[in-house]
Amino acid sequence: MPIKIACGQLEVIAGRPDLNTKSILQVISAAKSDAVDLLLLPELAVPGYMIGDLWEQTAFLKDCESYGKQIVEASSGITVVFGNIAVDWKRSNTDGHVRKYSAAFTAQDGKLLPTAQGLGFVAKNSLPVYRQFEDSRYFSSQESLLKDKRISLKNGMGTVAVTIHGTEYQLGIMLCEDGWTENYPLSVPVMLKRGGAEILCNLSSSPFTLGKNHKRHLIFGKQAKELHLPLIYCNHIGIQNTGKNIFTFDGQSCVYGSDGMVKAAAPMFTEKLLTFSWDKETDKIRAYSAEDELVATEDDETAVIYKTVRYGTDNFLKQTGIRRMVLGASGGIDSAVTAALFTDILGPQQVLLVNMPSRYNSELTKNLAQQLAENLKCCYTIVPINDSVAHTVEQLYTPIHNYTSNRDFKVELNGLMYENIQARDRGSRILGGFSAAFRGGVSCNANKAEITVGYGTFYGDLIGLFCPLGDLWKFQVYALGKYFNDQIFKAEVIPEKIFSIRPSAELSSEQTVGNGGDPLIYEYHDYLFRAFVERWEKVAPEDILKHYMDHDLEKFLGCKEEIITHLFPSHAAFCQDLERWYSLFTGLAVAKRIQAPPILSLSKRAFGNDYREAQMTTYFSLAYKEMKEKLLRQERLF
Amino acid sequence: MPIKIACGQLEVIAGRPDLNTKSILQVISAAKSDAVDLLLLPELAVPGYMIGDLWEQTAFLKDCESYGKQIVEASSGITVVFGNIAVDWKRSNTDGHVRKYSAAFTAQDGKLLPTAQGLGFVAKNSLPVYRQFEDSRYFSSQESLLKDKRISLKNGMGTVAVTIHGTEYQLGIMLCEDGWTENYPLSVPVMLKRGGAEILCNLSSSPFTLGKNHKRHLIFGKQAKELHLPLIYCNHIGIQNTGKNIFTFDGQSCVYGSDGMVKAAAPMFTEKLLTFSWDKETDKIRAYSAEDELVATEDDETAVIYKTVRYGTDNFLKQTGIRRMVLGASGGIDSAVTAALFTDILGPQQVLLVNMPSRYNSELTKNLAQQLAENLKCCYTIVPINDSVAHTVEQLYTPIHNYTSNRDFKVELNGLMYENIQARDRGSRILGGFSAAFRGGVSCNANKAEITVGYGTFYGDLIGLFCPLGDLWKFQVYALGKYFNDQIFKAEVIPEKIFSIRPSAELSSEQTVGNGGDPLIYEYHDYLFRAFVERWEKVAPEDILKHYMDHDLEKFLGCKEEIITHLFPSHAAFCQDLERWYSLFTGLAVAKRIQAPPILSLSKRAFGNDYREAQMTTYFSLAYKEMKEKLLRQERLF
Repeated sequence: MPIKIACGQLEVIAGRPDLNTKSILQVISAAKSDAVDLLLLPELAVPGYMIGDLWEQTAFLKDCESYGKQIVEASSGITVVFGNIAVDWKRSNTDGHVRKYSAAFTAQDGKLLPTAQGLGFVAKNSLPVYRQFEDSRYFSSQESLLKDKRISLKNGMGTVAVTIHGTEYQLGIMLCEDGWTENYPLSVPVMLKRGGAEILCNLSSSPFTLGKNHKRHLIFGKQAKELHLPLIYCNHIGIQNTGKNIFTFDGQSCVYGSDGMVKAAAPMFTEKLLTFSWDKETDKIRAYSAEDELVATEDDETAVIYKTVRYGTDNFLKQTGIRRMVLGASGGIDSAVTAALFTDILGPQQVLLVNMPSRYNSELTKNLAQQLAENLKCCYTIVPINDSVAHTVEQLYTPIHNYTSNRDFKVELNGLMYENIQARDRGSRILGGFSAAFRGGVSCNANKAEITVGYGTFYGDLIGLFCPLGDLWKFQVYALGKYFNDQIFKAEVIPEKIFSIRPSAELSSEQTVGNGGDPLIYEYHDYLFRAFVERWEKVAPEDILKHYMDHDLEKFLGCKEEIITHLFPSHAAFCQDLERWYSLFTGLAVAKRIQAPPILSLSKRAFGNDYREAQMTTYFSLAYKEMKEKLLRQERLF
Repeated sequence: MPIKIACGQLEVIAGRPDLNTKSILQVISAAKSDAVDLLLLPELAVPGYMIGDLWEQTAFLKDCESYGKQIVEASSGITVVFGNIAVDWKRSNTDGHVRKYSAAFTAQDGKLLPTAQGLGFVAKNSLPVYRQFEDSRYFSSQESLLKDKRISLKNGMGTVAVTIHGTEYQLGIMLCEDGWTENYPLSVPVMLKRGGAEILCNLSSSPFTLGKNHKRHLIFGKQAKELHLPLIYCNHIGIQNTGKNIFTFDGQSCVYGSDGMVKAAAPMFTEKLLTFSWDKETDKIRAYSAEDELVATEDDETAVIYKTVRYGTDNFLKQTGIRRMVLGASGGIDSAVTAALFTDILGPQQVLLVNMPSRYNSELTKNLAQQLAENLKCCYTIVPINDSVAHTVEQLYTPIHNYTSNRDFKVELNGLMYENIQARDRGSRILGGFSAAFRGGVSCNANKAEITVGYGTFYGDLIGLFCPLGDLWKFQVYALGKYFNDQIFKAEVIPEKIFSIRPSAELSSEQTVGNGGDPLIYEYHDYLFRAFVERWEKVAPEDILKHYMDHDLEKFLGCKEEIITHLFPSHAAFCQDLERWYSLFTGLAVAKRIQAPPILSLSKRAFGNDYREAQMTTYFSLAYKEMKEKLLRQERLF
């Protein structure tokens, strides 16, 4: 006889066991009404996952235990497997804090079921400490737990026998990373199979990353097929953050048959009780609803980016209680796409675009900013900064008294200082002021290329509540802008001209739309910087130079063919450009990132807690220096 | 016959194997001239320790290997034990990155000596992942290395036999955390003794923490005594950072005799070749210089704070290439102490104090700011902000066009907005401008109590290159101020009145020096916040309320007796205050800290990477709510 299984793909709120338990109890109640036999709930569904060092607070841990008991009590007439923190109050971790596990508890008819290993829960075994993950800072592993209790691994890892309608089922339980077996010496799914598991249940708290869903289908599908076991993946939705990064949790819970194929799947970013039947005898899994059978074909990258940025932004604003936004509107692409995003989420009347011209701004960009506001139908105002900047400059020329020499002196201002005065005047003075007065947040419109090299002004354009496009390269920002026009607004809401003008900060007479523009050549630098930041094995200048000398750098970086020859008249010019940006990336840009607003994470490496860095002085490797010397010597010979 | 041993207490620069190797080769050369037989050098002396995800860059790792070879080659006629990264290029960590160890290499006469376990190095075994430490993000342990190589722990952990003047010595080698055995299941020193070690060598890269030197003497002294082995502790000096935190490395290398007593010690923050003789036969250790025999008696806390803040600040400025500083001078204690600090380090003419009065600033504080500048003999100017603030307010009243309704409207400003406009005007507009024009950095003068609850304005007083007093409670700032007058300047350089006036931000007519002042009552809140932040087991409102009900809260917090009864007329008032600050601490203050400047770390818990936190909504525990309800019900009954 088949049993009815459900994944409770709910929203989990970090640090709110009270609210999460309320949601969980509602899902249990709904599952009972729906005659579900076995309900899975995500990893750490009670406390949430990204709660920082709140894991060190006893009062919080005790409450998570209390709420866990409420969930167990609610399991009359149903079997529930749920994620919560498990605390061993008598032991400590190697840092002296109380021993904790990210655990899966199994409850049935108001009671906790023991595992086949004789314990009260199954602990997560693989504890990731890469990217933003720091599980081993807080949690101990299932392996160490079994070792402590002197239980041999020969008895399996974490199996629970549950009896449903008179038949016994061996659930092989694991948590999130346990299923990502690529680099771990011990394969948890294999151990579960050896321990007699008849179905694999992976409770996850897995944040969205571009391309991850595809990779998971490959790895998890293969796992199910090779072990010839069905595999349930139960993930939650919502947003959580690590301070510097905001992560979306995409859900996408699903069940793989023992043939490795997805049999039922829940959508991205949607609360869902995903139900399906499993017949152990015939090894058949069937979705109850035809729509759940459709595996969401991965949309194109821009569509996925749109969905994720929209969901993450909307939910972060909801969490912070902010429903209005203020943006500087320059007439450029970054602010245009950000304005489109907030208008899409909040409605046009909740979005204030402020154009703040100085004498360097062109009529073209001023008109484009206004046109954008008109097209979006949002709120718009123009606040010129000429008078204020002049007043600031005048005040900075106030005589300074030197009490050692007892003489007065004055500072001198140069062009770059003047540029930054303008940027801070716009950011901190005007947008900061409107933020409070309009009762909204300020958006930081920086893209990932700018953030990589610190192309932006401290307390100027780098201010804001958060940075929604901070994990997108410039080419992705353009693509997202096109997507808004083509797919969302289905009209030229972002004026076409904004896509075609050369980006410029318009901060001096040398740097205007007509004359010069930004020093970043995105067609090349987007891809160069991506190699520095996003490759799993970090790319250094020596790797770049090697590929340059081998004439396959464009291919290596994935950028347009021949662009490098086109851009650099000489090897010396190539090296100078490379060193300039690498020095900024590893130098001043680090200081700027330390004080930058949180970034919404999309890629497999976003700046912030996902990318640990220190303020250091720039280092060029021995091989780089050697290759460069050789190259330039050659050049001088000809 | 005794042999001559030395600890090379040098400065290590994070991420600069080129510069570090140069220093190491100089130390080796000096040690040879001094007829040293055995030279110890610190953990990760080649690459540095806090280098973030630069550990993932192949080019950097390869260079560390190259420089390591240079050091081995330089060991003719001497034995050198040094810390470097060891890479196993054929294996990967659980995250797929190449396998790495924080390793100690032993070189003699130009060759690498194998360990008794047959390996080329000893790896650090205990990999801390608490506070700012994230060793297991990057490194694998000695235990896992031995396991991989199928070497039984019965053969010891990491012993190296070296022959000096015809006698064989068994060096028991460990790295930093390996010696801090309190909470680890496996004691490395005990294992080393079992493996035949005759002397313990701890190579460290150990950042300064208040009280840590005392604790190390206790733990390491006990270790030497219990194992009846001499123990050498070799640490380096310098500063390194994790982005949000700047750490000082205090050196304080020393040697413990097998009686547990310190026989020779190097001073804090000073480069030193600490030499001593060891006679294995007689078990005698003797310093060569009488001055090294003196164990630096731990100065009083304020003296240690002064030394550390001065060293950390000076070195951070040197690293960033900044030799001038700009400070807002309000006439209050925080800016006065910061001004004294920078004057002490840079000289008075390199420090610019800017007083930026609005109509709310008293003559008293304006005069105090000027008096301070005069006493310090530094540069001083007055830039009033009234006109600019009026201009900003006027500009914020610019009509805004709503393109949905096609109507204009204006925002409204309230008192708090007006306060923040002033703060941003001072910070971003004036100090930001002077920073560039004076070619200096801006100092953020916030103290730890303010940072705990976010009492400061985004892009206003929270801007800066870094925050030198950000890990000091207000009472520590006062003590440091007194120390400057009494011990450094030996004169009333910081005017006495600055110590006695009530702190006030002077941002409105309600909040001035004469009238109201800051909402923080430091005599109580300093201690309350310290309990939230610095206790190893985090204190929650329920713990505070419990102690309040038990009438021992002052004792629990360590603040003045009876202050709580004095401050709060009712239980309701007590709870209201507690909830107000706990909500800010866990709420808006988190957002502010994410964008705050780096903090110089002193305590065992500084805000930043040392204290992981997420933006969440505030949670009060079940027990708190229950106790509070009971308490307030009682109050209402009377």
